Amino acid sequence: MAENILFAHRFDEVSGSAIREIFKIIAQPGMISFAGGNPSANALPDELVSQIAQNVLQSDGKRILQYGATEGYPPFVDCLKVYLRNHLNLTPETVLPVTGSTQAMDLLCKALIDPGDRIIVENPSFLGNLQCMRLYQAELVPVDSDENGLLPGSLEQLVIQTKPKMIYTIPTFQNPTGKSLPVDRRKAIADIANRYHVVVAEDDPYRDLRYSGSELPSIQSFDQNGWVVYLGSFSKVISPGLRVGFMAGNENILRKCTIGKQSTDVHTANLNQAIVDQFIRQDLLPGHVKKICENYKIQCKAMLAELESFPEGVRFTRPEGGLFIWVELPEDMIAKELLQKAIENKVAFVPGTHFYVDGGHENTLRLNFSNSSVEQIQIGMRTLSKLIYN
Amino acid sequence: MAENILFAHRFDEVSGSAIREIFKIIAQPGMISFAGGNPSANALPDELVSQIAQNVLQSDGKRILQYGATEGYPPFVDCLKVYLRNHLNLTPETVLPVTGSTQAMDLLCKALIDPGDRIIVENPSFLGNLQCMRLYQAELVPVDSDENGLLPGSLEQLVIQTKPKMIYTIPTFQNPTGKSLPVDRRKAIADIANRYHVVVAEDDPYRDLRYSGSELPSIQSFDQNGWVVYLGSFSKVISPGLRVGFMAGNENILRKCTIGKQSTDVHTANLNQAIVDQFIRQDLLPGHVKKICENYKIQCKAMLAELESFPEGVRFTRPEGGLFIWVELPEDMIAKELLQKAIENKVAFVPGTHFYVDGGHENTLRLNFSNSSVEQIQIGMRTLSKLIYN
Repeated sequence: MAENILFAHRFDEVSGSAIREIFKIIAQPGMISFAGGNPSANALPDELVSQIAQNVLQSDGKRILQYGATEGYPPFVDCLKVYLRNHLNLTPETVLPVTGSTQAMDLLCKALIDPGDRIIVENPSFLGNLQCMRLYQAELVPVDSDENGLLPGSLEQLVIQTKPKMIYTIPTFQNPTGKSLPVDRRKAIADIANRYHVVVAEDDPYRDLRYSGSELPSIQSFDQNGWVVYLGSFSKVISPGLRVGFMAGNENILRKCTIGKQSTDVHTANLNQAIVDQFIRQDLLPGHVKKICENYKIQCKAMLAELESFPEGVRFTRPEGGLFIWVELPEDMIAKELLQKAIENKVAFVPGTHFYVDGGHENTLRLNFSNSSVEQIQIGMRTLSKLIYN
Repeated sequence: MAENILFAHRFDEVSGSAIREIFKIIAQPGMISFAGGNPSANALPDELVSQIAQNVLQSDGKRILQYGATEGYPPFVDCLKVYLRNHLNLTPETVLPVTGSTQAMDLLCKALIDPGDRIIVENPSFLGNLQCMRLYQAELVPVDSDENGLLPGSLEQLVIQTKPKMIYTIPTFQNPTGKSLPVDRRKAIADIANRYHVVVAEDDPYRDLRYSGSELPSIQSFDQNGWVVYLGSFSKVISPGLRVGFMAGNENILRKCTIGKQSTDVHTANLNQAIVDQFIRQDLLPGHVKKICENYKIQCKAMLAELESFPEGVRFTRPEGGLFIWVELPEDMIAKELLQKAIENKVAFVPGTHFYVDGGHENTLRLNFSNSSVEQIQIGMRTLSKLIYN
């Protein structure tokens, strides 16, 4: 069989998402999973989407089923601009609907990254997008953080030293740490981007999942000359299965992304864009997000309450929103070993090492609370606590 | 503004699809367009899709709206395997649903192509996929053809001389020429792939649109050791706007494509896969395709009848199916100049030069008949005939 195929060098250091392999192992009945980043089943508006799908196909079916423009389904593009202005106080030059915000990252790399180009990333950061950057053979340069996220002073030094093509950040309820960047740091990042002419990819899928504290302006809102590209997603507030996100920013950059998208998937499926379009136009999002957040807030609180009574030496973040809590075990503990024992006891999570650019940090782990009931959270967390004690 | 951005070198020779620019110019009311490759509006089953969308969201809505596996929506993967066996007599090791078969080409290049790697292509060939290969900085090597398509003898010589990573072919009702490869050439291509260990990308989106002649076996049906990857699409038989296609072939190759897809769009939208799944499971395709073909056959015949009375020196293909007829004007004529005049007279087509690896062939053009009524075809073709005379 075709076993002696030479694959492209971009795969030399990429073997597939470690998380996705864990997912296969833990897909057992009775498993309490803190591993994924999935919305709760209750948060998925299946009846609404069913109604909307039927309506848009009845009212605009011929256009929806025909080839669309790479630039997006026209009503949705219009709607996104209004949404960004009203909801985020953003008025970007251009908006491009994409097939999930993962595609936005892929297109940005396609537009900007030659092999060996540097991208500055938070460390730890979102595994899926780290893999994306590695497939473009970028050199990932980690920037220092404290309890509030990346440090603009360190960022500026790194920008001067390494002349990166891009800075990748998840400023709000970061994956995997749950941290949110304070407003002054957001402004500082935009300033650095504009001063040194580096593109910032501001990946902001969790923004609307806020359970306490007050809303923070986006990095892009401080952008002066189009160096910040905002990546948005409807995966966490409507449905990840629909694969609809968007990118917003400078026309010049988004034009290259659009050309890249022509040969990636021609255009994002019109039906999916039309469904999200109606969700926004019918003003269904605020009520739906409020309902989701009420539940996630209770789940988050329940998990934090359990963590408070964890053995001494266990540290954890206290996010104001999002889907994740980040845990640091005592330095001599290894999260992968804990996971082995946890799985035997029907509890799962993701070891933190996978989120670091160079691995290590074996004592860290990521917990997701959105996909478990309060009862499951209590049972699962108490199991973890016991396993850490012993 | 961010104007002095250095884009990646993959864009050095790619400026966006020329066809898509033409489309913008010709989107005028009253234009008779032979330019696109769009299905006829009548061929788009909006009522059926509306019903099916509603049904699948009611019966499996929570799974459909949740994250799915990169490997595909499980019922659809099962269904595709049966469909390939029954419909094409293919039993590939693996099947991967993709976001339109354009994505299949993107993933194959991602898996296989380093900058400078060679891909042998028919010349002329499908512009969108040529752009895709160029964005992977492949060197495109054109292979000689005659009136029946690419010549296996020339192909073998080129394979020996240039040691390509891939051979890209559209064997059935080729875009843009409408030609179909005879069965002996299909077998010869599979043999060459297996003897020289070259991957063949067999792009077969038009196969079901047959108006005369008899079905031809796929190249993959002659494959021995997994060197032929079959790319299929539902864009021409259900809807291009849904963006659902698939790739089928060797497990080793498709595994790399799957890893590549993880960071391209995570997975193809479940709703879209579920809709196509039901189309196949409810056995709706045969009747629907039959209806489409009845109309396209009449349109194709009408366009060929007009061409028969064109000025002497105009040559054209007589396809047994698909969407396109290829025209060669007398050698001293320039199709781009004809297009200028044609647009003034409210008729549009695509100059053939865009489909050639190195341009040239200024006297060629591609005509699409699926998106115009018989009356429009008669009016439009008579306009073209007059313009060629004058």
